[in-house]
Amino acid sequence: MKLVHTVAELREEVAAAKAQGLTIGLVPTMGALHEGHASLIKAANMENDFVVVSVFVNPTQFGPNEDLDAYPRTLEADCKLAESMGANVVFAPAPKEMYPSEDATWVEVTGDITKVLCGRTRPIHFRGVTTVVTKLFNLAQPDRAYFGQKDAQQVEVLKRMVKDLFFNIQLRIMPIVREADGLAKSSRNTYLNEAERKAALVLSRSLKAAKEQYEAGERDAAKITAAVTASIKEESMSDIDYVEIYALPELKPVAAPMAGSNLLAVAVKFGTTRLIDNVVLEEK
Amino acid sequence: MKLVHTVAELREEVAAAKAQGLTIGLVPTMGALHEGHASLIKAANMENDFVVVSVFVNPTQFGPNEDLDAYPRTLEADCKLAESMGANVVFAPAPKEMYPSEDATWVEVTGDITKVLCGRTRPIHFRGVTTVVTKLFNLAQPDRAYFGQKDAQQVEVLKRMVKDLFFNIQLRIMPIVREADGLAKSSRNTYLNEAERKAALVLSRSLKAAKEQYEAGERDAAKITAAVTASIKEESMSDIDYVEIYALPELKPVAAPMAGSNLLAVAVKFGTTRLIDNVVLEEK
Repeated sequence: MKLVHTVAELREEVAAAKAQGLTIGLVPTMGALHEGHASLIKAANMENDFVVVSVFVNPTQFGPNEDLDAYPRTLEADCKLAESMGANVVFAPAPKEMYPSEDATWVEVTGDITKVLCGRTRPIHFRGVTTVVTKLFNLAQPDRAYFGQKDAQQVEVLKRMVKDLFFNIQLRIMPIVREADGLAKSSRNTYLNEAERKAALVLSRSLKAAKEQYEAGERDAAKITAAVTASIKEESMSDIDYVEIYALPELKPVAAPMAGSNLLAVAVKFGTTRLIDNVVLEEK
Repeated sequence: MKLVHTVAELREEVAAAKAQGLTIGLVPTMGALHEGHASLIKAANMENDFVVVSVFVNPTQFGPNEDLDAYPRTLEADCKLAESMGANVVFAPAPKEMYPSEDATWVEVTGDITKVLCGRTRPIHFRGVTTVVTKLFNLAQPDRAYFGQKDAQQVEVLKRMVKDLFFNIQLRIMPIVREADGLAKSSRNTYLNEAERKAALVLSRSLKAAKEQYEAGERDAAKITAAVTASIKEESMSDIDYVEIYALPELKPVAAPMAGSNLLAVAVKFGTTRLIDNVVLEEK
């Protein structure tokens, strides 16, 4: 496996792979790789001849009071994990390499899809995501790109971007990977102290209960979100940002009664750490 | 030559060309093709194995009071010209085909480069251009894309977009093609009545004089623009939008005294028709 830091080096690797007629899988990450990322790289390796993993803590998707500086950087361990999962190249550029100009060219998905849920408290977040993913798409020229369902809104936004801009790339969405006790894997879990870590289990617990409630026949979205909210509030350390249900795809307003496929998504702070989790509610 | 109207058909043509290992040249146009476009298609044909010409009057680059509805549509003649210049495919989609979603995904180059010159009176114009060109790039996946120097600001904006978003595409910029009497070829020239057509010759005449003034040693940008402005104002039918000089690349403020390569650009209305023209002033 090769570790490269510059756009020029990545382009060389990609051109060589293309010249051999290899299919390319891209796994865009912010590093601090965990088993969730490992599942993406593994899938990319199974479905493509050549796998590029990007490790880039993208500054433009962080707000001014967010955790850009604190975000964990563990490149050496990331490279080991990526290699063990079958990556061919890790691309770890400096910010200046990805954003060479003073002013910027932005790629932005507009409309409610980027304004609801995380978009409400993180107004520039998705613009940063779609911009950096466009850059990575153009550099790696993948046949398939891999993202985790944990970032459910990001997934919907990227699907829209790919559709609107006609990227000739298949998005492959992999299921949430959880710890044995249910906590969704996240690079931000390392921020949690022991008490917060324990309190955070309420998220997966309450989403599981919501799924059971739905499967038992509940189709009133307000009743489901009320139950999840009440359950999360029982944890005194929790500070709810949102508990909401939107229709899939594209996060449209949920129907009454619920029909089709819907996303129940939560964002909750424990101490200074904001965690997200979600479950898809749909008829089997 | 094939005429196709849908994204799916274009994708098929491009995939077939790629499968044969052909290089692809893209010539994005709004139709009403003239000899300027012909020179682009001819160049694309000389430098690539397979040439795609898009004919699409892109609604998102027109402001609410601009000439979207009046813009000339001459698809049959366009196809004949494209074929005679060596195009393999003409792609002429309906607006709904290019903009399938209600809300939009935008590609936007920010900063002064899109705010000066035409950007001042046409605030959404370049966002529309960069968005549609991104879509066309992703659909046609060209090795090279061809644009005319007549739209000098568009050229600088697209260069920036390609650089910032890492499109693996070479931009090929072709010189302005003029009528025998000097008028720059433009699809909008058909709007001019006889008197306006004659008055509009002041543009190329005054730009030529400016070039001579520069070549005679003048390096004061204000003196050059003053001379051009005065000359254009002698035509009573003219209504100046701008006469300005910016440094190339990227339309930075011009140095005093002028150095390097600079763009002298004009936009002037004759009757209801707004024409643009330009000349590059640089040391030989």
